[in-house]
Amino acid sequence: MTFRAPVRDLAFALEAIAGIDDVAATGAFPDYDADLMSAVLDAAGQFSEQVLAPLNRVGDQKGSVYAEGSVTAAPGFADAYRQFAAGGWTGLSADPAHGGQGLPKALELAAFETVHAANMAFGLCPMLSLAAIEALQEHGTDAQKDTWLSKLVSGEWTGAMVLTEPQAGTDLGSLTATATPNGDGTYALNGQKIFITWGDHDATDNIVHLVLARLPDAPAGPKGISLFLASKYLLKDDGSLGERNAFRPVGVEHKLGIHASPTCVMSYEGATAELVGEPNQGLSHMFTMMNAARLAVGVEGVGIAERAYQAALAYALDRRQGRSVWTGEHNAPIFDHPDVRRMLSVMKARIEAARGICLSTGVAADLARHAETEEDRRKWKAREDLFTPIAKAWSTDMGVEVASMGVQVHGGMGFIEETGAAQHYRDARIAPIYEGTNGVQAMDLVGRKLSMDGGEAARAIADMLETLTAMAGLFEGKPVERFSTAITAVEDATLWLIDRKGEADGAADVLAAADAYLRLMGDVIGGWMLAKGALAAKARLDAGEGDPAWLNGKIALYEVYAANILGHVSSRLAAVGQGGALLQRMTPQALGA
Amino acid sequence: MTFRAPVRDLAFALEAIAGIDDVAATGAFPDYDADLMSAVLDAAGQFSEQVLAPLNRVGDQKGSVYAEGSVTAAPGFADAYRQFAAGGWTGLSADPAHGGQGLPKALELAAFETVHAANMAFGLCPMLSLAAIEALQEHGTDAQKDTWLSKLVSGEWTGAMVLTEPQAGTDLGSLTATATPNGDGTYALNGQKIFITWGDHDATDNIVHLVLARLPDAPAGPKGISLFLASKYLLKDDGSLGERNAFRPVGVEHKLGIHASPTCVMSYEGATAELVGEPNQGLSHMFTMMNAARLAVGVEGVGIAERAYQAALAYALDRRQGRSVWTGEHNAPIFDHPDVRRMLSVMKARIEAARGICLSTGVAADLARHAETEEDRRKWKAREDLFTPIAKAWSTDMGVEVASMGVQVHGGMGFIEETGAAQHYRDARIAPIYEGTNGVQAMDLVGRKLSMDGGEAARAIADMLETLTAMAGLFEGKPVERFSTAITAVEDATLWLIDRKGEADGAADVLAAADAYLRLMGDVIGGWMLAKGALAAKARLDAGEGDPAWLNGKIALYEVYAANILGHVSSRLAAVGQGGALLQRMTPQALGA
Repeated sequence: MTFRAPVRDLAFALEAIAGIDDVAATGAFPDYDADLMSAVLDAAGQFSEQVLAPLNRVGDQKGSVYAEGSVTAAPGFADAYRQFAAGGWTGLSADPAHGGQGLPKALELAAFETVHAANMAFGLCPMLSLAAIEALQEHGTDAQKDTWLSKLVSGEWTGAMVLTEPQAGTDLGSLTATATPNGDGTYALNGQKIFITWGDHDATDNIVHLVLARLPDAPAGPKGISLFLASKYLLKDDGSLGERNAFRPVGVEHKLGIHASPTCVMSYEGATAELVGEPNQGLSHMFTMMNAARLAVGVEGVGIAERAYQAALAYALDRRQGRSVWTGEHNAPIFDHPDVRRMLSVMKARIEAARGICLSTGVAADLARHAETEEDRRKWKAREDLFTPIAKAWSTDMGVEVASMGVQVHGGMGFIEETGAAQHYRDARIAPIYEGTNGVQAMDLVGRKLSMDGGEAARAIADMLETLTAMAGLFEGKPVERFSTAITAVEDATLWLIDRKGEADGAADVLAAADAYLRLMGDVIGGWMLAKGALAAKARLDAGEGDPAWLNGKIALYEVYAANILGHVSSRLAAVGQGGALLQRMTPQALGA
Repeated sequence: MTFRAPVRDLAFALEAIAGIDDVAATGAFPDYDADLMSAVLDAAGQFSEQVLAPLNRVGDQKGSVYAEGSVTAAPGFADAYRQFAAGGWTGLSADPAHGGQGLPKALELAAFETVHAANMAFGLCPMLSLAAIEALQEHGTDAQKDTWLSKLVSGEWTGAMVLTEPQAGTDLGSLTATATPNGDGTYALNGQKIFITWGDHDATDNIVHLVLARLPDAPAGPKGISLFLASKYLLKDDGSLGERNAFRPVGVEHKLGIHASPTCVMSYEGATAELVGEPNQGLSHMFTMMNAARLAVGVEGVGIAERAYQAALAYALDRRQGRSVWTGEHNAPIFDHPDVRRMLSVMKARIEAARGICLSTGVAADLARHAETEEDRRKWKAREDLFTPIAKAWSTDMGVEVASMGVQVHGGMGFIEETGAAQHYRDARIAPIYEGTNGVQAMDLVGRKLSMDGGEAARAIADMLETLTAMAGLFEGKPVERFSTAITAVEDATLWLIDRKGEADGAADVLAAADAYLRLMGDVIGGWMLAKGALAAKARLDAGEGDPAWLNGKIALYEVYAANILGHVSSRLAAVGQGGALLQRMTPQALGA
């Protein structure tokens, strides 16, 4: 099954749904225009199709290999990475001052969706470099930027984020790795870290680790953590590679999926490191890039779902079985069975909803930096903040569910590994877990992101009501009623949560509601995205622009979504209000432990 | 992680929810009483815990192995199977006339749930033998029963169901394997079959294949298929094993999960076979045992979910991270975080709902055979028929979703294979596919099982309303309202479907609604099961019987279900009414093909 980058859908999502023209209008991206966008997406799509997609299966089968203190990337991956770097893909949105191309984040996300779709295990490598780039751009000294940043932007070296320890996962505050001053301005890092994605490999000469550790006498807990940089090879004074630094992988995990992405256990044994940013501010430095990393994982969810969907669609058009109730054809393609068509339509609708959410969040991130006025930048920052946990969690849950539906469309063949559907189901499963589990995203949403005045949530509701009004010319009856009911549900749930947040005994109720509230928001904002798409498609049809069959599909897609997904809101609303006390009654004894 | 058979919950489901006492009251099972039930469940649970569960991981890692025309079971499996047979577990519900123990089907299903939970790949072997036993009991001649049935009942030999061909999966009518008379009353089988579960192995001396094939000059399509029996070794006149028959495995599939269950490609090359039942009635003979096989797969879904749930619960009680909002404890067990407690509670609620549906279907099957009056038997047969596709599809979808939640509760560790959660996620994925995909179950439900007068659906609604009335003393407010709303949704959806079934142009609408209707029925009937459990728990509490913490858990479990699952009904209702025309608008072009 050949992967085809969904370039047309991506461009549509950027322009007609996410509103990338607003980013262009800031003037912050003088090189950017619609032609450049198309060229970037075409080129990214081509690379993903031709270089990355063909390696997806061998990467799954052979995986990356650990032996004697070093990791070898899966067959073909090192070479593909070097081509990727040579193509300039690692620095698409980076600052031109350090060799980047200075393009909008939203465009970079769209381009990366094709990378994740083609080869999710591969995509993690540049995704982690991007996080290191953001950290150094924000918190590095000029000297650090000169030394490290340009190599990460060019892709000559890769980056790794080194946070987790066995006892410190979600609660990074309990980590114990140490950094002791060497007396020469450098530090000696000691400790063991786990779950270090692409922590070692043979695709580049050097690897830049950003490591969380504690200084001597640092306060206990989250306020005593600092950020350090340690590279696999120490640099000589002329910047060339010197001796091997004192850290190494001691193993890679045997995982359910993304076998080609080495998940390293790393041991730091007096590794030479330098401090990044302020002492004891390591966690907050990490959080400044958290939004970006979480959004990138959301896009991964969209990518893997798109891949699974394409495989299922191709299979359904090819596989023949039974008589079609529509055409009367015997031995018809299973695509012509309503239940199969339903699965494919719902898959597609959910993918485009999640894509719209993620790229809208990307546009918000761009505008948060580049909008003209301080007020606008604040407004867009609030949108980015509110949408990010939704983009991450809703899109990655969608990724798992769509990959599972992809298996189902294949019937018995879906359970056979050689078909490929099973790999998507396995690969997709990591995205709801890492970069903050989806439960953590939900807590972030109802905690930090939902302000007591309802501010940004209220603005989002107002924006949705505007779209609802615009829909009157296109839809009538249920497709409109369902969106209207859904918006009301968001209002009700938001008010209930704000009320409980204001009460001294409300914390458990808010946390018990978190997951359902995030799903509610995702369901409704996803519908909003498709509604905007349908309106844009209608406008293009009216103007006689574009492919009518495809544009009419965008309109029908909203209706499919309204019938199959928007109805979930009453269920979400019930779960939002379940209350912490009910869950507290579910004691270990009640649960049979 | 140790598996503990949920014997107490199983006994509760049989007695308090499924109503196994009604089966006992028929007098058809004179040996049966509550003590016997407990003894059987205890013994099955012990065997599952001590013999089968410890082999689950090695079975996954090593799998069954094909080499040079034969299959070797995974390490330890052949021995475990022989212990299983020696324990009498293969003939629990079989006719005593052929060596069976003549116990109720419902009890057998409960016992087998522990087998599937402990080791799903193992459980498939006796499950397939059971299907062969049913086929021969129903359609075999006395001679066939004497020769084959007793060996299957004793477990000395195993059975295999040989249906699928590459071009004939859901549409068995298009199969092409042939059976040519040899002139001596036997037939020569030729053809290739795929997806033959436990089609070959080394756990028993002989294997009995029940094979669908076409006689010469048989009509084309489904009406030209006959059922044949061919054994791996031919029998000598004295019944001892003779020469090897002319069929063999030519490979096993490399699958996503259940690695220890050999999924064989079988080649029949003039294999000697005998006819079972009537010529050209093969498909209808297979359908007589379809209900039982589908129900057994539903129980598999419950079993794998129970296993995944237990692992997640144990992990959540052990793993410490962050501060509890309830207890204020720092570095608290993650069980004390509301979102984790929510996941575990919802998992448990869905498992007990599905268990209730499956065991109630089992009780209906027993009463369909043994109820006193013809009218009662017809009534229970209708209940069995209506519930079977729901038991199969709803329980197996639940199995996948609960296994996925199990991964999520484990966080990053869930994605590491050695933890075990990932295996459940992989193993669970087959159950919605085989024995008729869940889409086929939904079509069966809205097609054959939903009669034009609404008959059995109306009776189920009436029974639910009776429980609703009884709930008044136990619950008030939302837990009651939600069940009431849910029952109304079932009524509305059923009436809409019956209406569309009556219209000439309604077929596509009915098929487009099938999946949502099945989910709606499952959601609501599942709630009914938990409501019955809550009422029974209340009665026991009032009577001062049983463990209060555990019984109060049954009451809270209904409330968790009502808040988190029953709200889905409005969404299901919307999807039921989406109509075929909308899906038809989703053309290949609209879908981006």
